[in-house]
Amino acid sequence: MQLNLAIIGLGGVGRGFAELVADRGVALLDRHDIDLKIVAVSDAFLGFAFDPEGLDPLQLAQLPREAGALAALSGGQANPDNRRAITEKVVDFVLEATVTDPVTGEPAMTHCNLARESGKHFVTSNKGPIALDGRRLRREAATSRLGLDYEGVVMSGTPVLRFGRECLAGCRIDGFRGILNGTSNFMLGRIEAGATFQAALKEAQDLGYAEADPTADIGGSDVRLKTLILAQEFLGFHGAPTDIEMQGIAELKAEDVHAAPAQGRRWKLIGEGRRNADGRILLSVRPIALPLSDPLAGVGGAMNAITFSTDLLGDVTVSGPGAGRRETAFALLSDILGIVRMAVPPRYNLRKAASQ
Amino acid sequence: MQLNLAIIGLGGVGRGFAELVADRGVALLDRHDIDLKIVAVSDAFLGFAFDPEGLDPLQLAQLPREAGALAALSGGQANPDNRRAITEKVVDFVLEATVTDPVTGEPAMTHCNLARESGKHFVTSNKGPIALDGRRLRREAATSRLGLDYEGVVMSGTPVLRFGRECLAGCRIDGFRGILNGTSNFMLGRIEAGATFQAALKEAQDLGYAEADPTADIGGSDVRLKTLILAQEFLGFHGAPTDIEMQGIAELKAEDVHAAPAQGRRWKLIGEGRRNADGRILLSVRPIALPLSDPLAGVGGAMNAITFSTDLLGDVTVSGPGAGRRETAFALLSDILGIVRMAVPPRYNLRKAASQ
Repeated sequence: MQLNLAIIGLGGVGRGFAELVADRGVALLDRHDIDLKIVAVSDAFLGFAFDPEGLDPLQLAQLPREAGALAALSGGQANPDNRRAITEKVVDFVLEATVTDPVTGEPAMTHCNLARESGKHFVTSNKGPIALDGRRLRREAATSRLGLDYEGVVMSGTPVLRFGRECLAGCRIDGFRGILNGTSNFMLGRIEAGATFQAALKEAQDLGYAEADPTADIGGSDVRLKTLILAQEFLGFHGAPTDIEMQGIAELKAEDVHAAPAQGRRWKLIGEGRRNADGRILLSVRPIALPLSDPLAGVGGAMNAITFSTDLLGDVTVSGPGAGRRETAFALLSDILGIVRMAVPPRYNLRKAASQ
Repeated sequence: MQLNLAIIGLGGVGRGFAELVADRGVALLDRHDIDLKIVAVSDAFLGFAFDPEGLDPLQLAQLPREAGALAALSGGQANPDNRRAITEKVVDFVLEATVTDPVTGEPAMTHCNLARESGKHFVTSNKGPIALDGRRLRREAATSRLGLDYEGVVMSGTPVLRFGRECLAGCRIDGFRGILNGTSNFMLGRIEAGATFQAALKEAQDLGYAEADPTADIGGSDVRLKTLILAQEFLGFHGAPTDIEMQGIAELKAEDVHAAPAQGRRWKLIGEGRRNADGRILLSVRPIALPLSDPLAGVGGAMNAITFSTDLLGDVTVSGPGAGRRETAFALLSDILGIVRMAVPPRYNLRKAASQ
């Protein structure tokens, strides 16, 4: 089945997705019977292109990073046109890969609303709209019988949302604790090994883990948005980022981090949520000196991990990459495949016996 | 929707499942819109019972462990009748929870065949039929449009099969390595802490981890069956248990296990599969001294874990309980829910735009 896609935002993740389509087109058709065509692209810096027959994904992946570069494509222009990309009649799925605004959720919020109004399925790697207004967005998408998915917003490609929703279905999830920011986790490892905070930060920046402005990573606000999304998804929490008590890694003393292993502990920046017996939901983001026996204590480098606490299985942990353009592009693909799975005719007749 | 179940084998797992139905009936109806009724039970030791209106799940969970005890129920008799339990017209799902026979797969193999011939969905916690003839069983179930699932066979309730199939869909899985036997993992931890092999084994038996005859746990054949199932499922391997090179933990020297951490390593019994660049599939079961930085090195006690190696995400690891009656009962429930998900009408119209 051919699916026509519009990509909004052709940065690392958007290009990573175009590369996936170029590399995997045949395998996806073979294994999942879907033929992904990127028919529209819009990017604030690069402009806009539209071709109902499909743009060349490899050309998109390798587009020069120059203002208005999309004008060079057939059907291209130097000015972006997000609205047209989203609303073009032939578009089935909108892929949103713009940069997160943690305060307004824009422009992704507008894109999500517009996609729904136009009858398009929507997948995004953008934390903003999901953290700030996920409940409304999910409800409205469901009412319109449109897919809305966002596996990439918590741990990039590592599929923790789908794991919690589908693989743990039938359990009650009572809480979670996660290492949700690769930069701070990498830095804590370097500090434990003897580096100063500043040296660890510089190393993280040199390796491309940390942003030029690392405030969201080390101050905890990146983890706070992710904790909020997890709490909404799995604990039924309703609230805003500022409802979550937050402390980053900047106030930790390097000597404490360095000394912890000798005491059988290791410092980690933990985003945590728990539903108490009285139904109250407790959320926090803060550094914790975990015992070395904790499954999260062994999660090193820029890796991320989440431990779900459940009634029937106790603790179950998923760990994997928490960032990366290819990894996040996979998350978008995995969202598309998830929506496709809920759009196919039923494979089974449940009450075969009774209906005979 | 009401689903009528037959349970074959009312040991720990079968009783655990009956307990789940007793405890969770309301929640399952609320959250998943399914009303599970156990209408038939057959057990080699306890006998048989059938009630088309549904047996009392709590009574089943608490049934005295006495020969022929099912005769005390209305519609009960002292003799087992697996065939009747499976083929009764009102039965929709057969839950197979008999003991694994690693050589013939019986009696579970016969139960699986009979369920398919009778048009019943089949879920099992029994490794035998899946490891020995999984490919045929899957093909025949698919042809008959019947569900066949077995999440519990590798890591009891920890949902690694579903994780690999659904959450990693879109990735290529190139290999896996797992800690797949809780008894041997627990023992290695005790030996590392200074216990002798015999003391560690006795402790595992006292805690109920190890069987009275622990050969399959410490000799590696339990891990070998699980490795075979994973290799069939994720690497497309066709073969028999004996195709897999196997070494258990019995030949390890206690002093080597004890000394490893000082050298930055930890011994683990690892079931491993890898598809080489030339397409050849390499499988093995053997103790490996993993570097402490390996995600599997931190998996302690009776916990299990699997690391999947993928093209798009690199390594992704799932860890959780690897045994337990309640955990395995959850796996059966999770299989039922998985089949139900593939039996509901499509939620989305994929090409909404195009069809307008």
